[in-house]
Amino acid sequence: MSEAHTLGLFAAAQAIREGRLRSVDLVQSCLERIAAREPHVHAWAWLDPTMAIAAAQAADRLPARGPLHGVPIAVKDIIDTVDMPTECGSPIYRGRRPDADASCVALARRSGALVLGKTVTTEFAYFAPGPTANPHRLQHTPGGSSSGSAAAVADRMVPAGFGTQTAASVTRPASFCGVTGYKSSLGEFSLAGIKPFAASFDSLGSLTRSVIDAQWLRWALLGEQHAVDAACSTTALRVGLCHTPWWDQAVPDCQQALDSVARQLSAQGASVGAADLPTHFAGLAQVHKTIMAFEAAHSLAFECDRHHDALSPQLRQLLADGMALTRDEYVAALETGAAAKREFADWRSRWDVLLAPSAVGEAPAGLGATGDPLFSRMWTLLGVPTVSLPLGRGATGLPIGVQLIGAMRGDEHLLACARWVEDHVPTTQAGLE
Amino acid sequence: MSEAHTLGLFAAAQAIREGRLRSVDLVQSCLERIAAREPHVHAWAWLDPTMAIAAAQAADRLPARGPLHGVPIAVKDIIDTVDMPTECGSPIYRGRRPDADASCVALARRSGALVLGKTVTTEFAYFAPGPTANPHRLQHTPGGSSSGSAAAVADRMVPAGFGTQTAASVTRPASFCGVTGYKSSLGEFSLAGIKPFAASFDSLGSLTRSVIDAQWLRWALLGEQHAVDAACSTTALRVGLCHTPWWDQAVPDCQQALDSVARQLSAQGASVGAADLPTHFAGLAQVHKTIMAFEAAHSLAFECDRHHDALSPQLRQLLADGMALTRDEYVAALETGAAAKREFADWRSRWDVLLAPSAVGEAPAGLGATGDPLFSRMWTLLGVPTVSLPLGRGATGLPIGVQLIGAMRGDEHLLACARWVEDHVPTTQAGLE
Repeated sequence: MSEAHTLGLFAAAQAIREGRLRSVDLVQSCLERIAAREPHVHAWAWLDPTMAIAAAQAADRLPARGPLHGVPIAVKDIIDTVDMPTECGSPIYRGRRPDADASCVALARRSGALVLGKTVTTEFAYFAPGPTANPHRLQHTPGGSSSGSAAAVADRMVPAGFGTQTAASVTRPASFCGVTGYKSSLGEFSLAGIKPFAASFDSLGSLTRSVIDAQWLRWALLGEQHAVDAACSTTALRVGLCHTPWWDQAVPDCQQALDSVARQLSAQGASVGAADLPTHFAGLAQVHKTIMAFEAAHSLAFECDRHHDALSPQLRQLLADGMALTRDEYVAALETGAAAKREFADWRSRWDVLLAPSAVGEAPAGLGATGDPLFSRMWTLLGVPTVSLPLGRGATGLPIGVQLIGAMRGDEHLLACARWVEDHVPTTQAGLE
Repeated sequence: MSEAHTLGLFAAAQAIREGRLRSVDLVQSCLERIAAREPHVHAWAWLDPTMAIAAAQAADRLPARGPLHGVPIAVKDIIDTVDMPTECGSPIYRGRRPDADASCVALARRSGALVLGKTVTTEFAYFAPGPTANPHRLQHTPGGSSSGSAAAVADRMVPAGFGTQTAASVTRPASFCGVTGYKSSLGEFSLAGIKPFAASFDSLGSLTRSVIDAQWLRWALLGEQHAVDAACSTTALRVGLCHTPWWDQAVPDCQQALDSVARQLSAQGASVGAADLPTHFAGLAQVHKTIMAFEAAHSLAFECDRHHDALSPQLRQLLADGMALTRDEYVAALETGAAAKREFADWRSRWDVLLAPSAVGEAPAGLGATGDPLFSRMWTLLGVPTVSLPLGRGATGLPIGVQLIGAMRGDEHLLACARWVEDHVPTTQAGLE
């Protein structure tokens, strides 16, 4: 088997651009990896090898037309693709064929990317899991809701995948699968063609195996050119170590992983200090829940009324909870959130990045649930960008992520900082099963 | 011909609820009106009389299941309907059948409403007009982009219609057609199932023939019960007369209509004062344009790349302009907008509502353009709710609207104030052609 499937997005794009690699060889390598591993990992909701090879052959015949020319990517199955089904992880939409590509898919294709296939999402990107297993230990959850993209990227089936986040749907699977999960600022990318869940939070994200790959994909979508090396020049990074109000709910190996990263950053010259959030921020996880329930109940009114029996019990409960909220309760939650955003913007300005847990701990055993979103709810409520880096390992050897948090719309600086962290703290890459 | 088609939404709903009117008789009356007038007005993108009658008959056989039981409404054709085509005013989507109802359609149906048909939108709710004529004078534009909903409601074809606004797409057609146009606060309603254009601005709206109808539709969508009379209790209304920075671009009859309404409100006991915006707000119309162009270019990337020849010249230009903007220019515009929102929230707190022009003047002659969005851009940028009321008449006898502007998320209070204004200033209803 060719090792091309182990290349990252940036490396693969450069190799193709420089004529050292053909797109068809890369795609063939990915497909071989998928053929070997997919029966165990179940990362893909839809994949057509013949179509993928044909697209790669077409790319090889053309001059490079963008920074992702000939590079395959995975697309979470709540994101519309005009030439592939988009089923949203629900039997309601089995076989559904969208009339258009989502904005992010169209922009990736404009940059030359090939959509290799669609990856498993939980039901409407909420909690009911799909069949995907954690490639590091198949009896454990990969996390959700971007389960398939995280597992496929972790398993070297594809160099990058799109995810989305409304609560913890990029950060948690990134942490559980040991990959880099970038959740963009609220509003940073157009969500046209992505199934809405809660508009106050829904954000595009990516799953990759390094920070440069997340940057490269981001720049491609934005149509921007950046110097690759310039992103590494961050020095004397000011890091706020933020245990968050939920620290005692993180397991000890997760706590130790975070504090260990903080110590290593300090040893490498970063300025690390304790960043204790205002105490009333402890209420923000609940505020996030309230807003999400209200908005989901309205966004999914059609599915609730016409396909109630086809919804999972947990989604039915969320929609019922959301409809039971009064508009005054919802607006009060929005106002609490808006006040917290203002307060946070001032408070965090003394740091370049905050450093916080990505999740409660390692990926839990069992595929019936995707784990606790607790450590992402507040950041998602605040709308700020986050990057989860696979810098820790848990007591049983599974990956543990640490989360870097930036300023609203400060995605560029956050990713540059994440690159510095990645360069200065060795990843403790867990082996694949 | 039965006169039932002239009933407003609230009156029709009450008549059906109290057994004084059958849904089928109301729908039949609307269909007769449409049969007589549609060959001239061209308000509808899709309508199936047989299906509409069947739905009304079904409603008449059931007990009332909500506040809109048996009442027909019109739905702008960028809003998805599972049982009717949704073509977005573009040949790209000719015959397109969505897989779900939009949130607002599902919630209206939950309240018992019948979707009578789909109404004409400009291309993707931007500037390229559809075939719709102004029912008051058929050689004149009805305004856009919610052209069909405004014309159909003005022409008594249907009591209410959904619209959307990204620049002036509810306010301007309401003004030109002499109906009540309510544009909700940014984020007030879920936009799931509505074709996105610019997420920073896209908002749901309604076209009706009175304020109570706008309230009734709003409450139905929100699942709220309100005392109908209580909405009228506003006294000693504090009205800020806001000529806006573009006053000299309004034609004299439009200026006179606005000042006349201000005088009448003062005579009726309202406290009316001049509300002069901070001078730098004059730049906000351009800021709106910048953000809209950037976001549209990203939202419509698929249509731009795959169907470029099927786009109108004006939309192609907007998308090219949007892609030519740098992300820094876009973010700077967003930041200017965010600062203006904060400043505006403080500045406006001394007023219950602002009173400003709805449009430059009467509906211009010709169906090749939908008029100037100038007098709505700033309010849409600020995200605040607005109501256009048909309280003026222009030099040639066509309707002229005046615009009431509320506080962010202050939709309830704004509509209550609009109700008071409507009760205290006689509408100068222009006759239909």
